[in-house]
Amino acid sequence: MIAKEQLHAFFSPETVAVIGASASPGKVGHTIISNMLKAGFKGKLYPVNPKATEIEGLAVINDIAELPRGLDLGVVSVPREYVLPSLEALAEIGTKSAIVITAGFKEIGKEGYDLEQQIIELCERSGMALLGPNCLGMMNTTAGVNASFAAGHPNPGSIAFFSQSGALCVAILDWALGENIGFSKFISLGNKAVLDEADMLDFLNHDDETTVILGYIENVEHGEEFLKQARKASLNKPVIMIKSGTTAAGAKAASSHTGAIAGSDQTYSAAFHQSGVIRVADVATLFNLAQAFSNQPLPKGPNLAVVTNSGGPGILTADTADRSSLSMATLSQKTIQKLQEFLPSYAAFYNPVDIVGDADANRYRKTLGVVSEDPMVHSILVLLTPTASVEIEKTAEAVIRTAAKCGKPVFACFMGKTRVAGAKKMLMEAGIPCYSFPEPAVRSIESMYKYNIWKNRPEPQYAEVKRDKEAALQLVRDHEKRHQSEIVEFQAQEVLRAYGLPTPKTVLARSSDEAVAAAEEIGYPVVLKIASPDISHKSDVGGVKVNLRNATEVMETFKDITARAQRMRQEAYIAGCLVQEMAPPGVKEVIIGFKRDEEFGPMLMFGLGGIYVEIMKDISFRLAPLSRQDAFEIVREIKSYMLLKGIKGEQPVNFTALEDIIMVMSQMALDLPQVWEAEFNPVLINHEKAIVADVRMTLHLSDD
Amino acid sequence: MIAKEQLHAFFSPETVAVIGASASPGKVGHTIISNMLKAGFKGKLYPVNPKATEIEGLAVINDIAELPRGLDLGVVSVPREYVLPSLEALAEIGTKSAIVITAGFKEIGKEGYDLEQQIIELCERSGMALLGPNCLGMMNTTAGVNASFAAGHPNPGSIAFFSQSGALCVAILDWALGENIGFSKFISLGNKAVLDEADMLDFLNHDDETTVILGYIENVEHGEEFLKQARKASLNKPVIMIKSGTTAAGAKAASSHTGAIAGSDQTYSAAFHQSGVIRVADVATLFNLAQAFSNQPLPKGPNLAVVTNSGGPGILTADTADRSSLSMATLSQKTIQKLQEFLPSYAAFYNPVDIVGDADANRYRKTLGVVSEDPMVHSILVLLTPTASVEIEKTAEAVIRTAAKCGKPVFACFMGKTRVAGAKKMLMEAGIPCYSFPEPAVRSIESMYKYNIWKNRPEPQYAEVKRDKEAALQLVRDHEKRHQSEIVEFQAQEVLRAYGLPTPKTVLARSSDEAVAAAEEIGYPVVLKIASPDISHKSDVGGVKVNLRNATEVMETFKDITARAQRMRQEAYIAGCLVQEMAPPGVKEVIIGFKRDEEFGPMLMFGLGGIYVEIMKDISFRLAPLSRQDAFEIVREIKSYMLLKGIKGEQPVNFTALEDIIMVMSQMALDLPQVWEAEFNPVLINHEKAIVADVRMTLHLSDD
Repeated sequence: MIAKEQLHAFFSPETVAVIGASASPGKVGHTIISNMLKAGFKGKLYPVNPKATEIEGLAVINDIAELPRGLDLGVVSVPREYVLPSLEALAEIGTKSAIVITAGFKEIGKEGYDLEQQIIELCERSGMALLGPNCLGMMNTTAGVNASFAAGHPNPGSIAFFSQSGALCVAILDWALGENIGFSKFISLGNKAVLDEADMLDFLNHDDETTVILGYIENVEHGEEFLKQARKASLNKPVIMIKSGTTAAGAKAASSHTGAIAGSDQTYSAAFHQSGVIRVADVATLFNLAQAFSNQPLPKGPNLAVVTNSGGPGILTADTADRSSLSMATLSQKTIQKLQEFLPSYAAFYNPVDIVGDADANRYRKTLGVVSEDPMVHSILVLLTPTASVEIEKTAEAVIRTAAKCGKPVFACFMGKTRVAGAKKMLMEAGIPCYSFPEPAVRSIESMYKYNIWKNRPEPQYAEVKRDKEAALQLVRDHEKRHQSEIVEFQAQEVLRAYGLPTPKTVLARSSDEAVAAAEEIGYPVVLKIASPDISHKSDVGGVKVNLRNATEVMETFKDITARAQRMRQEAYIAGCLVQEMAPPGVKEVIIGFKRDEEFGPMLMFGLGGIYVEIMKDISFRLAPLSRQDAFEIVREIKSYMLLKGIKGEQPVNFTALEDIIMVMSQMALDLPQVWEAEFNPVLINHEKAIVADVRMTLHLSDD
Repeated sequence: MIAKEQLHAFFSPETVAVIGASASPGKVGHTIISNMLKAGFKGKLYPVNPKATEIEGLAVINDIAELPRGLDLGVVSVPREYVLPSLEALAEIGTKSAIVITAGFKEIGKEGYDLEQQIIELCERSGMALLGPNCLGMMNTTAGVNASFAAGHPNPGSIAFFSQSGALCVAILDWALGENIGFSKFISLGNKAVLDEADMLDFLNHDDETTVILGYIENVEHGEEFLKQARKASLNKPVIMIKSGTTAAGAKAASSHTGAIAGSDQTYSAAFHQSGVIRVADVATLFNLAQAFSNQPLPKGPNLAVVTNSGGPGILTADTADRSSLSMATLSQKTIQKLQEFLPSYAAFYNPVDIVGDADANRYRKTLGVVSEDPMVHSILVLLTPTASVEIEKTAEAVIRTAAKCGKPVFACFMGKTRVAGAKKMLMEAGIPCYSFPEPAVRSIESMYKYNIWKNRPEPQYAEVKRDKEAALQLVRDHEKRHQSEIVEFQAQEVLRAYGLPTPKTVLARSSDEAVAAAEEIGYPVVLKIASPDISHKSDVGGVKVNLRNATEVMETFKDITARAQRMRQEAYIAGCLVQEMAPPGVKEVIIGFKRDEEFGPMLMFGLGGIYVEIMKDISFRLAPLSRQDAFEIVREIKSYMLLKGIKGEQPVNFTALEDIIMVMSQMALDLPQVWEAEFNPVLINHEKAIVADVRMTLHLSDD
């Protein structure tokens, strides 16, 4: 993370130098100068060029060394081979921040990657904040800064936008100008050598000029920092993002772009969910939401009221609401009575309130007044179809007045285009999001409602897991020393004990006699499992037999299992068999596992055993550390949750016991960084208790 | 269905009378006259009004009886009580068709409903085609007809649109004017007393001026006719529809609107799927697709090639394609070599082909030429970000030329708004759909690809089911006579036999001795099931016991089951127990059922037994009659299909046997209209054969 002071100098510089400034219009080095001037920059602007004397009326500096010490921002747009020397010269005079426009670094392969590393090291040494390389630049509308070579200058506004794709910046800038959308900050991140999305989230979170943060990212390299900043920012203002490169084809496209390596989509979904980031799939939705969030209060509940002058659009709206997390509000008797006092008898008094095609602005006004006062209504959507008798602009005024008074979010959908254009402009200018059709309006309200729930959820509770971390680490280190990447049940039992996890009674039997003795002690029926450090998938060698009822069965099975395993894996060391107590009837099998993500760390997964995980892909995910709420949710998100809750009169499983084990695995994943993935499979659970019946861990050996 | 001649007179009238014409601007009866004049109507237009003499320069007729005989179209806009007399007078002079603008019929309740019935009867007697009542009217742009009170007149075009919501007509008309979208026909259906969506589909299918049919419907009353016309039209040109009122909230809203009763969403999904109708959720998508379909050829395969001057949007596109039915095309070596000849080394030669930010129009042109010639490419999407060096209009020209030459569908996404506005207009005018962001472009291409598959699928094959229909009908009639609505297994076995369905060996045992004798004959183990015409859910009384291994178990179980059933259902007649052969190990249980939909007839469902249908809701649907392909698909659409195919080395089940049973149930549903719902549950199936192990049927008794 970059120091606050540097970031302040970066976003609101008083002194800016453009290294590679040019007097020729059309050149990048000229566009940056003219953009700074057009943006109305009030500070000192220094064009730097070894040969020129004057650019756009400004005196040219010929050498970076001649610039004033402690420069706020240096914008570098020179051929690639001059970038590092220029940055070194800037660092030499104590420059606080820099933007490298020039491309040809990490994104082009090894040579560029090495050069970028040198830039990173320079910044680490000098403490200089650096945007890019390979970016469009940065704009701060309130500070009169347009340090970019973009073709336009954004209008001022309260939306901040950052993007890993410069092209998307260009497209959005042009589109936003056409749509009259304004920005506080507009940042092209480029290769993110130094400044990345986490720095932006941190800064924009504290930026009073920004009410909504938008981002487009292709990958995240420092997952933990991202999560931390995203969560902090989301608690303060909405953070809405597109993460692309999420599918196989997208990731393939991304890998030849900006040098990004895209992580799995599940990981990002979990990361966004847990940090409160609102994820959207496309640019249109990004800005629909931005406008809604930046202008309207958050709905305090799910109940949407719809006032319309036409039936069809009302139905479309109710349909969309029903498919969302919102509900169509049930209006109170009092509200309905009040409506009946002035609405014509052929109106529909229930929600959607259809005030019918001959409604004038006055009827809209009175209806909105009554509906917005109903305490069971949390948000209001006003639909207008441009019928012959409707007073379009006057109705817009009525909507604006209602919104100003009622303190609830009010949205409009004035259907059509030409006849409603004037009213739409009035509404948008008054901060009331207005759409051409109902669907995006409902989706915006839903998103605000869900964000409000997230924002007001209780503080996450993390459990204190009692454990003997050293004992577990010791076992892991022993395996590392022996270059064994698999810790199989036979040994991993020690880890379970170190974490105090409930396990079935288990005895390692080295002979069939020992197996019988163990079975007698445990009590029939028992399970026999092959015990070998070299066999991690026991079923593959027929190494698990259940429901052995007597000494004869145990003895024969022991011989069977060990002989077969030795035959199938001749190189394996067979220690014997584990003799285990049998699960009582009626237990269910679940799987709890984790896998370490390179960017975000351990990702936990949960699902039901057997076909549910493997065939139905009915799995839920969370990143560690999991809070109590996360553990609660991960168990309930799967479709087969009903089976745990109990069907046909069954008792529900002991969910607390299950959630406890999940919390323990989360802690274990954080305690043992050498473990790359682990699985408790199955965990046996019934209404009384949960037992970890088998476990497998895989280490990441450094010299693999 | 309405005779062709009447429909022709309706859409392209040479003589039109407006009943209730008015000289006062603002009145509906005036707007219709002025709309007809503004539309450039070339035929004879007769304002009818008992008092006026001249309206808009036209001589007024004071009495319908004075109109010429054999009038093509009468547009009725008079107070409700005069509607029926006006229509009677029109029928009297042999009028071929009418539009009733006036509202206040079915949609307001009993009184209006009765009046509407009288209109329907009049039309049936007189053969008059009738649109409405309670509608906006109709427009035919090529015939110069605007028989509506809409506030605008649509541009001519090749898109036909009909809508059950007049308000949506108003909104879309205004919106389409702004978006420069043209129509061939534009129809507000209103209450659909006579002319409905099926008539429209039939007419528009044969209308040479229409290339794409769009519709908005809230319900369908004559499902079979709709399916037939939709299928015929879809084979000829794309039919794209919104069906609203699909959710509970939407249906509640719909039921207070146009008097529509909305059917279940699953039924409509099946109906649209089986008739080739492309279903969309919102108006924006409706018109995105309309423009794509009406201008571009259908893609011959799934492979999409993307040419872009920027990476980020390329990734977004690849992501969207990957989530769709499309694939990103793998370019041939030859194509890549050709691209390498002229593209800079830092371009991305794979798909998306990234020709980089400094690409000019010439580079676009050459790249598109090469990519479009690759035989593995079925469709092309051109992305353009308005970078500094890009030649926007010239690139648009290159895209237009490529599209004209290559015979493949070409789409454009020129990102942004202001700078790309001119190029977008050029593209749209040349018939190349151009979007602001990639997602809707990909979705349009996907929809065209899927439609092409549907259109070219083999002719549906229907099986000839051998059966003794009379025997089955007799059993059903016997139940009807006895007012028994449930036909339980014990009796329904006869129906299975009549349809030649494979059943387990079954004997009805009236005593425990008979049960033992039957079991000995069938061979152990056996199943015992309670046999009572009064008990349809046998498990509820503990009436099914499986895996009985010997005479003692059979004897005791018989006594147990019958005693318990009698205790729990004291009024029930207990005939004894069915003794049934036990399913061999390894069989799977599936459920095949049907339920009769009021509008569309029998709807078949398929799913795996146990929790899959009940808890996981993993069910697929088709309307009867099912073709062989439908049976093939219904089995493979469920998520748990993998379990039937066999996991972990299992053999797949005998799918042909399964599909045969599904086809038989489809036939049974059509043969026995008295059966309201039926279920084969379970059907036992393994790799060899399928057996209907239990069956239950429910009759719809007319005096229930």
